[in-house]
Amino acid sequence: MRPAHVVVDWGTSSFRLWALDSDGRVLAERRSQEGLAASGERGFETVLDSHLVALGVPDDVPVMMCGMVGSRTGWVEATYLDAPIELDGLVARTTIVPSSRRIHILPGVGQRHGSGPDVMRGEETQLLAVIGNAGEGGLVCLPGTHSKWVRLHGRAVAGFSTFMTGELFHLLRTASVIAPAVADAPDVDPASDGFAAGVADALESPALIGNQLFALRADWLLNGVAADASLARLSGALVGLDLTGPSARYGTLSRATLIAAGATAALYATALRIAGATDVAVLDAEDCVRRGLYVAALAVFGQGRAA
Amino acid sequence: MRPAHVVVDWGTSSFRLWALDSDGRVLAERRSQEGLAASGERGFETVLDSHLVALGVPDDVPVMMCGMVGSRTGWVEATYLDAPIELDGLVARTTIVPSSRRIHILPGVGQRHGSGPDVMRGEETQLLAVIGNAGEGGLVCLPGTHSKWVRLHGRAVAGFSTFMTGELFHLLRTASVIAPAVADAPDVDPASDGFAAGVADALESPALIGNQLFALRADWLLNGVAADASLARLSGALVGLDLTGPSARYGTLSRATLIAAGATAALYATALRIAGATDVAVLDAEDCVRRGLYVAALAVFGQGRAA
Repeated sequence: MRPAHVVVDWGTSSFRLWALDSDGRVLAERRSQEGLAASGERGFETVLDSHLVALGVPDDVPVMMCGMVGSRTGWVEATYLDAPIELDGLVARTTIVPSSRRIHILPGVGQRHGSGPDVMRGEETQLLAVIGNAGEGGLVCLPGTHSKWVRLHGRAVAGFSTFMTGELFHLLRTASVIAPAVADAPDVDPASDGFAAGVADALESPALIGNQLFALRADWLLNGVAADASLARLSGALVGLDLTGPSARYGTLSRATLIAAGATAALYATALRIAGATDVAVLDAEDCVRRGLYVAALAVFGQGRAA
Repeated sequence: MRPAHVVVDWGTSSFRLWALDSDGRVLAERRSQEGLAASGERGFETVLDSHLVALGVPDDVPVMMCGMVGSRTGWVEATYLDAPIELDGLVARTTIVPSSRRIHILPGVGQRHGSGPDVMRGEETQLLAVIGNAGEGGLVCLPGTHSKWVRLHGRAVAGFSTFMTGELFHLLRTASVIAPAVADAPDVDPASDGFAAGVADALESPALIGNQLFALRADWLLNGVAADASLARLSGALVGLDLTGPSARYGTLSRATLIAAGATAALYATALRIAGATDVAVLDAEDCVRRGLYVAALAVFGQGRAA
């Protein structure tokens, strides 16, 4: 195999690598759970090499990476660039990893002013795909452990806000007094009544979120509500809360772009519909990060040799 | 020693016992960390007996208890009485513990209708002291792991709402991505700028709580904010959020009664002042539970023998 570029999205809990031809088409891919903690122990170079060797990628094929691999606890720290920032400028500010291979890490984006201190790593690369390939401007939602809402202006990130939605869901589900009420529940069904009720609760009274959470326990104690219904309502309340903040800060959520995948995409698309948002475009998060990495690789390394 | 009654507040994480004379004066007290989990292992009767024996309390002195000892995972389950409920009626519905001693557990209060499903155990006993000794009516705040806001009407609990404030603080402080930003911080100073800023954030934009939380991490990463300032701001945001919900649900917080102790009392009193609440009365939580237990013991057991 002779790819033009290799691109890698290396996060806190997962590793994804694609070998691309000069047009950005996928020749091969590798996935693993070798996130930051696991890779730090084995050594980042060892982990990356094992995947490149498994695919038979020659030593002179350049590698473009993004995500938490560029954080303080990653391989090499890639500093945060300050928002507001033109996204095209990201590619001129990559960090070179000391290695016998050509390896670059894209910078994250930090916000010191505007709507409060904030940081992103990896999402800026997904945005690079959006401005390059899916039109410009408007509000972009990238839901997850730490959901990002980004206001684009032309080809720039004008400002952004992170919400601790997914992490709160995890903590409450596993380590709080709600845990017994949602134990062993299957994945949340976006079409369930519980999810819709949770979203409606949060949209109507975001200030009562602390009470909506405790009510899940009380409803289980008093009324024996089933675990799947309680978990759906918990998810709905937190996703609903995730919409009310940006709605207050950035105005209407209609015509927003949702960059997400799988279950998360379905939950947020449903919640946005319940919130009355129209014309929400949904883009696949993995496609976006791969395309953003390709845009960066092309800009930094050029077309590469013919496949 | 020959007390008229022994009263016990037995919660999830602590055990407090007072030997009282027939006028409710404290003859002796015992405190320990033998909450529900620890006591369940050793045996509730063994734990209680060890304290009674240590004080030399005769076998025929009756014992009145409240708190999580009456929960499903406690000694004997004392069912929830439905709100709205006249507080005087609690004493007629105690649960008798099978034992050679006379031991009763006060019921909790459950809410199936009104402002959503909710439960309390222990707080109803504090309220018994408030209506008996500190006037009637109005809004009562009992902050803690699960803060309660109670609307009294005459001598009745008209309705109440629990907020997961203290538990969220604990989870976020110890187990979230905020944890490194607040590590090793001392107790929160209610007079600090960080606490006031957190309260103001939450009062202004409760819907943005998820973002206010993540901003603590970003501010630490980007600006190296000190742990004590970040912890104070975290506390302020959560206490502030704890005020906005009841304010939306019950109207003005002025003339509320705050039943709390120590650091929690100071934090809530400060936050209420920042929120513009006037004429807030602060009562000591421990005094209230002891006095409520005494009211109940007197009603159920009578005056007891002379000391």
